[in-house]
Amino acid sequence: MSRECPFCELEGHEMVAYNSLAVAIYDKFPVSPGHILIIPKRHFADYFDATDEELKAIGQLLRKSRAILLQEKSPDGFNIGINIGAAAGQTVFHLHVHLIPRYVGDHPKPAGGVRHVIPGKGCYSQTTQPGNAN
Amino acid sequence: MSRECPFCELEGHEMVAYNSLAVAIYDKFPVSPGHILIIPKRHFADYFDATDEELKAIGQLLRKSRAILLQEKSPDGFNIGINIGAAAGQTVFHLHVHLIPRYVGDHPKPAGGVRHVIPGKGCYSQTTQPGNAN
Repeated sequence: MSRECPFCELEGHEMVAYNSLAVAIYDKFPVSPGHILIIPKRHFADYFDATDEELKAIGQLLRKSRAILLQEKSPDGFNIGINIGAAAGQTVFHLHVHLIPRYVGDHPKPAGGVRHVIPGKGCYSQTTQPGNAN
Repeated sequence: MSRECPFCELEGHEMVAYNSLAVAIYDKFPVSPGHILIIPKRHFADYFDATDEELKAIGQLLRKSRAILLQEKSPDGFNIGINIGAAAGQTVFHLHVHLIPRYVGDHPKPAGGVRHVIPGKGCYSQTTQPGNAN
């Protein structure tokens, strides 16, 4: 636990669900309605430092959060995403997995999805090429 | 298996690693050097339809792919990302998990990372707010 870490305290966050090793909260600055963060209770930054039990706990909450969002928001899709390291966009160094519900029309050209982490790289082609994928 | 699916055939792809239930290949249109896709052998589109065994197999290959990239490319971070549904940017409807190595300088303002799936939503603030996270 780190006193400086907002994801150790979780004060002021709206809780979605929890289990023994992780919690799910609504993101305070959602990129879409219903944007959820799944956070292990233990303080560590890197997804690859999670134990098997923590990964299982996070997976359970991803599934539960999805079910809640499907019922409450009826999204048309989801992105799951993780930033590992400052170079990858991480700014709070307590692991959190983004579950971002997506809605038809929330992006003029949604193709690419998580490829958009690098500017201009989201759309590799005007048409889908066999053997490539977004 | 679907004959129309490039991730059932995998012809022309450069293999990174594999196990009994999944494979890791280099993305043909990498958004950064070393961009890898982890793909279950079974043909299905939605991450949430994966079995526990498939999730474990995918997790093993994520870890192995990361180790290979750290040794060969020395990235400064990683994004892990999944697009579920056309609205979320998925265009090949065979599940694939993106492992995107990140390098200092590959983005002028990397903060936000996977938040960039929605235009203009990547950077919620010029400064990090307590209780929010990228």
